[in-house]
Amino acid sequence: MSDAATIRPLRASEISEWDKEADVVVAGYGIAGVCAAIESARAGADVLILERTGGWGGAAAMAGGFIYLGGGTPLQQALGFDDTPENMETFLLAALGPGVDKAKIADYCQGSVEHYKWLVSCGVPFRETFWGQPGWEPPHDEGLMYSGGENAAPFNAIAKPAPRGHVPQMADKRIGQKSGGYMLMKPLAETAEGLGVRVEYDTRIRRLIVDHTDRVVGVLATQFGKQVAIRAERGVVLATGSFAYHQKMIEGYAPRLIGRPAAAIEEHDGIGILVAQALGAELAHMDATEVAFFGDPQMMARGILVNGRGQRYIPEDTYPGRIGQATLIQQDNQAYLIIDEQSLEAALATETSTPFFRQPPTWAAETVAELEADMGLPRLALQGTVDAYNLHAADGKDPLLGKKPEWVEPIGSPLAAFDMRGFTAGFTLGGLRTDLDSRVMHVSGEPIAGLFAAGRCTSGLCAGGYVSGASLGDGSFYGRRAGLAAAK
Amino acid sequence: MSDAATIRPLRASEISEWDKEADVVVAGYGIAGVCAAIESARAGADVLILERTGGWGGAAAMAGGFIYLGGGTPLQQALGFDDTPENMETFLLAALGPGVDKAKIADYCQGSVEHYKWLVSCGVPFRETFWGQPGWEPPHDEGLMYSGGENAAPFNAIAKPAPRGHVPQMADKRIGQKSGGYMLMKPLAETAEGLGVRVEYDTRIRRLIVDHTDRVVGVLATQFGKQVAIRAERGVVLATGSFAYHQKMIEGYAPRLIGRPAAAIEEHDGIGILVAQALGAELAHMDATEVAFFGDPQMMARGILVNGRGQRYIPEDTYPGRIGQATLIQQDNQAYLIIDEQSLEAALATETSTPFFRQPPTWAAETVAELEADMGLPRLALQGTVDAYNLHAADGKDPLLGKKPEWVEPIGSPLAAFDMRGFTAGFTLGGLRTDLDSRVMHVSGEPIAGLFAAGRCTSGLCAGGYVSGASLGDGSFYGRRAGLAAAK
Repeated sequence: MSDAATIRPLRASEISEWDKEADVVVAGYGIAGVCAAIESARAGADVLILERTGGWGGAAAMAGGFIYLGGGTPLQQALGFDDTPENMETFLLAALGPGVDKAKIADYCQGSVEHYKWLVSCGVPFRETFWGQPGWEPPHDEGLMYSGGENAAPFNAIAKPAPRGHVPQMADKRIGQKSGGYMLMKPLAETAEGLGVRVEYDTRIRRLIVDHTDRVVGVLATQFGKQVAIRAERGVVLATGSFAYHQKMIEGYAPRLIGRPAAAIEEHDGIGILVAQALGAELAHMDATEVAFFGDPQMMARGILVNGRGQRYIPEDTYPGRIGQATLIQQDNQAYLIIDEQSLEAALATETSTPFFRQPPTWAAETVAELEADMGLPRLALQGTVDAYNLHAADGKDPLLGKKPEWVEPIGSPLAAFDMRGFTAGFTLGGLRTDLDSRVMHVSGEPIAGLFAAGRCTSGLCAGGYVSGASLGDGSFYGRRAGLAAAK
Repeated sequence: MSDAATIRPLRASEISEWDKEADVVVAGYGIAGVCAAIESARAGADVLILERTGGWGGAAAMAGGFIYLGGGTPLQQALGFDDTPENMETFLLAALGPGVDKAKIADYCQGSVEHYKWLVSCGVPFRETFWGQPGWEPPHDEGLMYSGGENAAPFNAIAKPAPRGHVPQMADKRIGQKSGGYMLMKPLAETAEGLGVRVEYDTRIRRLIVDHTDRVVGVLATQFGKQVAIRAERGVVLATGSFAYHQKMIEGYAPRLIGRPAAAIEEHDGIGILVAQALGAELAHMDATEVAFFGDPQMMARGILVNGRGQRYIPEDTYPGRIGQATLIQQDNQAYLIIDEQSLEAALATETSTPFFRQPPTWAAETVAELEADMGLPRLALQGTVDAYNLHAADGKDPLLGKKPEWVEPIGSPLAAFDMRGFTAGFTLGGLRTDLDSRVMHVSGEPIAGLFAAGRCTSGLCAGGYVSGASLGDGSFYGRRAGLAAAK
């Protein structure tokens, strides 16, 4: 058998003996893998999950737990929010960037209510409460929240705002007991294992195994340093996560994330992408990244965010991940939050899921001119921004960026500035191009026989923009599709 | 033989008869292809170029003709500019974006003087004159110009400014006779053909042909609809240009360019990238794009450029391609040029290579407040910008962005605004990852045997940033390397 260091496909004819067998082999036991396993098993397949670590969960189990769902889910309805698949689609087409896979977005929106019900049927709990304040996540176990800027400019003029961030109910978040992502993964893993899905832990895939027609018929993995050849009678599902921790891929595809991975796990080394590329797989949107921003949304909404030149650039009451992307990609990672004492006090009196982002200000001053000088900005750079903001804020308006009136108030004195330069980190969104059945596409335009993929090793809904819940969302939705298609 | 529509590699065992043979087969007769052919032929190889169109030239022959060279070329020296390979490298590392291939940049800078001499030895003429005014290109046949913002902020504080845009002398540019790119290609094509290089025109590559070890041993092409199998004894060089005209690749990798290709030719359909991907080739920087901006640099330097919010964002005296990238990527393709009557008249009295960008203003007004209202900007959005600019301009300074004093003057009255929203277009810079010998890298980390590539089907010097001349520069430089390596 060839060198384990290579990721080139291995010919089945070179395998003298298969160590293990299953109908469907799933690489990775995160959100995409567990959903693939459940649907494959329900379709009658004997399923084997290979997981590199010692337990189920992947990045999903550590995530806040947003699943982006809508179109009129029972939870949306129970909480009084109208939504339709078409309204959801209109929003996602506007928010997720140019070059999106339109068919995939339409498909996802049409199937969203059914997917919600499926998750519930697997035991994923959602509490019927809504959190309406700015934030990265609900501070308690609320089940629904805006998680993509749906109710902020410019999207609130494009589609009817509806919250779509669905969060599994936590056991007891107040005492730090288990995240929403854990509470998503746990019932799904139990469901999978209840269906007889087998799991091999500490098992890392290295290469795909193909027959003489280039059909994928298995994987070569390592277990405690030993190579194992695993036969997949019907198909292999790649669900191995992003490439956030593959240094060379980050440099080559998404260099703005160099040195700043986040919300990913070190196992996210791009292996699923690479082994499929070695078979000629097509890629998409390799530069796209989710970007977190280490700011407290309650504070940001009540102040103004300015870039390295002292200029406003985004409505401060939008989805904070959108602020992160704009800051990293469009503002060279330069940002300052300007807020007056009264608004800061109001912000600090609110509840938040991110109290650790509530640090003391970097500078405080009696006047904008003084603050501007302390910050090292040229004269009038910040003053001009504040003057223009205050002129319109006196009427409760923000014609420049469209922040909602409830957050618009003139900036008074004393005031402070928070240095938020470099306050970003994120994970990659690009990967294998898959079709609606989660078949991995070859660059020639046909699917690669026997190979399926879902989750962050694929290019899913997001072409450049992001909404919280899109990764657990498309990972679970297209994980199911992968499992179904592989079981056929 | 299989369907010509696929781009999957074909097994040599399936070829019953080879239609043509050569030691080295070069796909594409643009700048990378011609340089590969010359070096292969000089190394003793029998070389066959396959060109899809009816003549040599590719995008290169239509280009303005900048070749980015430095480190102390004879032309730089003759015109009194000091430069070293290290100084050039410092600049390029800063200007070409995060995630650059550092070894390639160092290599390119070290070899630049030799490469200049090689071009001259092949008959490429450079006139010993310097054009020092703002512009996209020299208005006449000057041989040297700043073409990357070397003498503008922030780079003029990072490396010692030196012009590196080397332009082949045109036959007679005043009467529209032949571009610099044509005058680059013509002597090189003559050199190649003088060395006995054979050419098949109207020949389009479709697939690579590999032996049982996956070594590339030929190409399958079509000639007037008929398939031809062409054997390459020593190697195949891909030099087929960018993917600017492959709609799905643009949507999938560089969606900001949807609907706005430029400085590319319709033959740039990504085929070289795709056939190599089908063999497991590694890619890099697929989102990177050159971006042209339809503005006259003489006018831009004398005014201020503001984004859709009325804010300045770039020193207006920098390389206009940098303005294009900043406008498209960071400012959502929104730009206005604000200039007063006196400065506009001064600009219009200058020479330019882009008189067609000198259109009448969209709005004219006596005051900034009036102009701001006419443009539909919120009150103080533009006024604040002009006030801040003028405050410092009165001292000849631009502390916000560092425009050089020679272009800084307060904006007076009357003044005008040019609507430059959507004024961008460009071509793609991403592609195959190659090593310093232009070997195409497999995702497994080793080169793909028998396969070489150069030019815009590869990821060359540019990871995100761009300088004019980088494409003819890395295309010619690594085209030579490809030819040499393939001939071995």
